[in-house]
Amino acid sequence: MIEVLTGVYNITPTPFHDDGSIDHESLRRLTAFTRDKGVDGMTILGVLGEADKLTDRERDEVITATIEAAGPSFPICVGTTHAGTDGCIAFSRRAAELGAAAVMIAPPKLARTNDAALKRHYLAVASAIDLPIVVQDYPPAVGGILMSVDLIASLAAASPRLVHLKLEDDPSPMKVSQVLAANPAVRVFGGLGGMMFLEELRHGAVGTMTGFAFPEILVDIYRRFSSGDRDGATEVFYRYLPLIRFENQPRINLALRKHIYHRRGAIASPRVREPFTAIDAGTLDDLDDLLTRLGLTH
Amino acid sequence: MIEVLTGVYNITPTPFHDDGSIDHESLRRLTAFTRDKGVDGMTILGVLGEADKLTDRERDEVITATIEAAGPSFPICVGTTHAGTDGCIAFSRRAAELGAAAVMIAPPKLARTNDAALKRHYLAVASAIDLPIVVQDYPPAVGGILMSVDLIASLAAASPRLVHLKLEDDPSPMKVSQVLAANPAVRVFGGLGGMMFLEELRHGAVGTMTGFAFPEILVDIYRRFSSGDRDGATEVFYRYLPLIRFENQPRINLALRKHIYHRRGAIASPRVREPFTAIDAGTLDDLDDLLTRLGLTH
Amino acid sequence: MIEVLTGVYNITPTPFHDDGSIDHESLRRLTAFTRDKGVDGMTILGVLGEADKLTDRERDEVITATIEAAGPSFPICVGTTHAGTDGCIAFSRRAAELGAAAVMIAPPKLARTNDAALKRHYLAVASAIDLPIVVQDYPPAVGGILMSVDLIASLAAASPRLVHLKLEDDPSPMKVSQVLAANPAVRVFGGLGGMMFLEELRHGAVGTMTGFAFPEILVDIYRRFSSGDRDGATEVFYRYLPLIRFENQPRINLALRKHIYHRRGAIASPRVREPFTAIDAGTLDDLDDLLTRLGLTH
Amino acid sequence: MIEVLTGVYNITPTPFHDDGSIDHESLRRLTAFTRDKGVDGMTILGVLGEADKLTDRERDEVITATIEAAGPSFPICVGTTHAGTDGCIAFSRRAAELGAAAVMIAPPKLARTNDAALKRHYLAVASAIDLPIVVQDYPPAVGGILMSVDLIASLAAASPRLVHLKLEDDPSPMKVSQVLAANPAVRVFGGLGGMMFLEELRHGAVGTMTGFAFPEILVDIYRRFSSGDRDGATEVFYRYLPLIRFENQPRINLALRKHIYHRRGAIASPRVREPFTAIDAGTLDDLDDLLTRLGLTH
Repeated sequence: MIEVLTGVYNITPTPFHDDGSIDHESLRRLTAFTRDKGVDGMTILGVLGEADKLTDRERDEVITATIEAAGPSFPICVGTTHAGTDGCIAFSRRAAELGAAAVMIAPPKLARTNDAALKRHYLAVASAIDLPIVVQDYPPAVGGILMSVDLIASLAAASPRLVHLKLEDDPSPMKVSQVLAANPAVRVFGGLGGMMFLEELRHGAVGTMTGFAFPEILVDIYRRFSSGDRDGATEVFYRYLPLIRFENQPRINLALRKHIYHRRGAIASPRVREPFTAIDAGTLDDLDDLLTRLGLTH
Repeated sequence: MIEVLTGVYNITPTPFHDDGSIDHESLRRLTAFTRDKGVDGMTILGVLGEADKLTDRERDEVITATIEAAGPSFPICVGTTHAGTDGCIAFSRRAAELGAAAVMIAPPKLARTNDAALKRHYLAVASAIDLPIVVQDYPPAVGGILMSVDLIASLAAASPRLVHLKLEDDPSPMKVSQVLAANPAVRVFGGLGGMMFLEELRHGAVGTMTGFAFPEILVDIYRRFSSGDRDGATEVFYRYLPLIRFENQPRINLALRKHIYHRRGAIASPRVREPFTAIDAGTLDDLDDLLTRLGLTH
Repeated sequence: MIEVLTGVYNITPTPFHDDGSIDHESLRRLTAFTRDKGVDGMTILGVLGEADKLTDRERDEVITATIEAAGPSFPICVGTTHAGTDGCIAFSRRAAELGAAAVMIAPPKLARTNDAALKRHYLAVASAIDLPIVVQDYPPAVGGILMSVDLIASLAAASPRLVHLKLEDDPSPMKVSQVLAANPAVRVFGGLGGMMFLEELRHGAVGTMTGFAFPEILVDIYRRFSSGDRDGATEVFYRYLPLIRFENQPRINLALRKHIYHRRGAIASPRVREPFTAIDAGTLDDLDDLLTRLGLTH
Repeated sequence: MIEVLTGVYNITPTPFHDDGSIDHESLRRLTAFTRDKGVDGMTILGVLGEADKLTDRERDEVITATIEAAGPSFPICVGTTHAGTDGCIAFSRRAAELGAAAVMIAPPKLARTNDAALKRHYLAVASAIDLPIVVQDYPPAVGGILMSVDLIASLAAASPRLVHLKLEDDPSPMKVSQVLAANPAVRVFGGLGGMMFLEELRHGAVGTMTGFAFPEILVDIYRRFSSGDRDGATEVFYRYLPLIRFENQPRINLALRKHIYHRRGAIASPRVREPFTAIDAGTLDDLDDLLTRLGLTH
């Protein structure tokens, strides 16, 4: 079992057939595709994985097929956010049973901004499972619930299960510094589509856990940076930033990434489950132009 | 199969044992308790039913036990809201299989305020199941998504499955009139804890679908009103309004109602699943005083 | 100068002529009307006073005319909320110059939920003016900014200018108790249209600061309660609760109250400034029926 | 009087002295600085101009000093958003009197998402002033109020005063296409810090109206694009995108831009009015590194 997560954990979508059912073959293909790009791990069933749109049985299918395809040496982190503490424990235990290396958990939406309730929630889950828990601090996804620096620091102090943080509370680089000042033991991952990946690393992040359909670019940035080659890391980040930004467009980021994975042969269909925001022809033209200019078309 | 819902559909909580597991015996007792109060039907797995905090398997347990206890002549409406259209269809079909008389569906949270996406969602579900669908218009529960009067009217025009509306967009009485002006075929139920029940009826509502731990009071109001005794209905409504308002306190309404059901012997434990907002001693004193004054303590 | 606010501070609307300009004569009439109902004070330029829809010059007009009409013995509290600390100080100083007895201040909307920024804001204003400041804790009016019990307690501890709280964070009675447990020096006023006035008093509130077009009813409840007649206070509260609730309907509460003040002869026109939500004929019928039944029509 | 706005309208901050008072000399310097960068116009008193934190008198000062410094040939657009229609008209008329070339107006926050109320608001203002009105479609700044494509198209059809749109509803490029498909007469400006400027132009935007402390870069992109040099425009956009993104960080974008303007000598102090989010030392290091790499330090 891994104790510590580091580097690039790519968040991947859930592939569907054109009729909307789960595409197991594409799940396997996407997992191999992602692993082969050199990432340190992969995270499934996050917002990008349309976790909210699946039934519990479908969750099991996705977890099982992915972990089978990943094999023992490629860690899979599983999103187990649930509106209830009991449900979050049930999801997390199930993920552990099925072989997850870690779980990622956003605050339950009923908690309002209330550090005591949030702390109880995370501590209850941490005492129920024997896996690293990635605390997800992403206010827009949970109705604006804010996690204070003090809360984050105290969670990591309370349990070694709670030292990992996926920090997506804008502006993220400043909050990386604040969290590490409050508790240097926190292992901070960036997110937000990689938009501030360079700066997050500069402020002390240990990696990123984010969706991006060219994971090899995140890997390249991370490896250069962690080996001391800041100039190289910066150069790569700047070069591909137009794409990082483009993929990260609110509401259509999912459809865009599925489209790209499909073009890259990693999934059989770009199908997104309803309701979702579809991309238009002009946006596809934008993407073609962008990929051509960046030399990413083959 | 019933085609048309009318009158008082009481929304009930999901009873748990003190350890948080589902209490089947209390489910049966609560169902009998509610039916015996004279309501026209009962709605489970709404917000008050902590539906979001259950796993899919637990949903099945609750539906099955409730419908068994209800018997064939007491209609059970089941909340089948889901973030995805496919998931909503799966939940709704499952409810139908298990014997639900109707389903209640709030907008999927990713729809934003977008009538076209909402309409596609409801029409897709309506074409997949053969049960009345109660469209729930309750913006605060779904991140502020608003349903226009035109959308509501057009849903009812598009399918006889979509004529029922649970209207909880404040101020509800005015919107009852607007909806009926746009399409008189809509069958509007009030909600909001019964706070505007009298006025909703005055504006043309055909009943209420709401949580309230003294359903016999809602029944009394409704029967008097629908039999033409407006004075009597108003008198009863006024008399019990202090309690209707008290139970309806934001964030603690669930804990209050479970407390009352427990006191009334309908459920074995007032346990609410975490996270939730607990009531304090002063609030219980308030409740005792209120019930005593209203003669509702025995 | 008064040091301490107690009892019923009625929040009043800003009367306009039918053309939308400020109606000075009605301002004077409304002030006399309110004072004559026996309230302890009056609060102008809150949300109900359409403060956001006035220019600064119009604010001055409203403050000046009201305070002139009030005379020296009838305290006027003035809403001086502003998005900036400097602006809030400017508004508050101006109110002080014009004779305000106190100011009421909600959090600046840019503060997010951040106790440190909120504390700086209130302390800066408290050090700039020599008047009681009523801290307004009403999250829905300021984009959901929450004020923690600790923040409220620490403000009151930091300055005698900051001991007054208008508490409108639902459920209010419980928070009254929590605030007083944290710092018994806080002087808590209820709000929320009086919906929980009885319970707020039971939990230790010293009064209410709220809009309600029959202020004499709030006065009656308060006087009975504070003189030890809890039964009488409860009876009056229960009797008029149908109206308290009716006036408090979201989005139309302003139009309803202006309509009632107009009927009572306190203002010449029920005009509300755009944009606002108008009441419909059915709602006016509801109101007529309600006032008739409560014996409030003459 | 200009009838039509085109190209780059840079939105500028309001410079303050270190004591928080308005710095007239810096206002003049900043205006000259911006004009000399070749922009087509300048927009003051937007969100970036801390308009909400000014008193009405201070607004007049800022407008007057800016327009004086601009001279007759450099058009100044003035933000005149107000929570009330009357207030918006008063602000807009005052801006016209003081020499504004256009006004920029976001929806009043009380309008909810309600096309009819929004349309009345804009039409009322359009009939009251004789200046181009830039309709600002930026949901996060107005509590999430959405403007439908139909509303935008119908405003432009209803009045030539209402053909200009500042579109900041993510994802903006797609909405540019949708708006132009509904009414080709709309003149769409991008915003959002320039994050999607290239794509907005590709989808048919006629310019951008946004904050960015290196306006000459926006001008370079726009001129190249509008002269048919798409490759050159893209190259410049890509080169400076790291900075465009960095300046655009939520909540600190204002402090960052004031810091940069101060470094560039355009304003005497980077002072922001409270409450605001300050930048930390690490973020300033990030900025230094970024500007050095982009060759923007002298």
